Amino acid sequence: MKPYKFTLTALFIYLAGLLLGGLVGYHIGVAKSRRPRSPQEFRKYLFQKLDNCLDLSTDQKKKLDCILDENFKDGIMMMREVKPKILAIMQKEHNQIEAILTPEQKKNFKVFIAQRMQKFNRAFSEETPRCDRRH
Amino acid sequence: MKPYKFTLTALFIYLAGLLLGGLVGYHIGVAKSRRPRSPQEFRKYLFQKLDNCLDLSTDQKKKLDCILDENFKDGIMMMREVKPKILAIMQKEHNQIEAILTPEQKKNFKVFIAQRMQKFNRAFSEETPRCDRRH
Repeated sequence: MKPYKFTLTALFIYLAGLLLGGLVGYHIGVAKSRRPRSPQEFRKYLFQKLDNCLDLSTDQKKKLDCILDENFKDGIMMMREVKPKILAIMQKEHNQIEAILTPEQKKNFKVFIAQRMQKFNRAFSEETPRCDRRH
Repeated sequence: MKPYKFTLTALFIYLAGLLLGGLVGYHIGVAKSRRPRSPQEFRKYLFQKLDNCLDLSTDQKKKLDCILDENFKDGIMMMREVKPKILAIMQKEHNQIEAILTPEQKKNFKVFIAQRMQKFNRAFSEETPRCDRRH
């Protein structure tokens, strides 16, 4: 094979790999990120992001940990107020949608609701924060 | 070049492309998905997802459109109640974090806050739903 033909073939093969990898990687990235974070996962993410962004000392990390925990608790208390209201809206919406569906569609809708509720329960789950100190 | 050497080289080039493409695609997917949806974007996404999942007729689509709009309005009303409470918690958290930072860190924290507030304002933005009919 002549060198230029080899280079062209190699380039084509590389681009084909790049394209397929890009598409697969993109869809994995989207699927992973669309899974909602639980409040505790969000708290950990926030701590990590602030540490990366601010390059915190050991002492600052301890203080940040407690600041986030205090506000996490406030957030959980607010979530407890809001959760039943959102659930009521969703329940009403589900009933209204179900009323316009055929029996066959209702089966698929049940699966849809189960998946939606799984995401909702993750996003609104209650977990215990790590620190009790108040600042 | 011998055929087996060519095949191995081609495979290596393809895998290199696949790997790089996968990594880049994954990060683009994550970055795109982590951008929060506005309520109106979520409403559109929900409509599309339900249509894909249930294969709705034209009449059902019209009805679904109005069901989603009705509940969108209820959601917006609830959001108006919750938004200032979340803002108050975030503001307290920002003040507490700022108090433990050095002057240099405070500059980076300002950028962090600006980005966080941009995401918050998108997630809690108010937009007009398309349909006013009630079912």
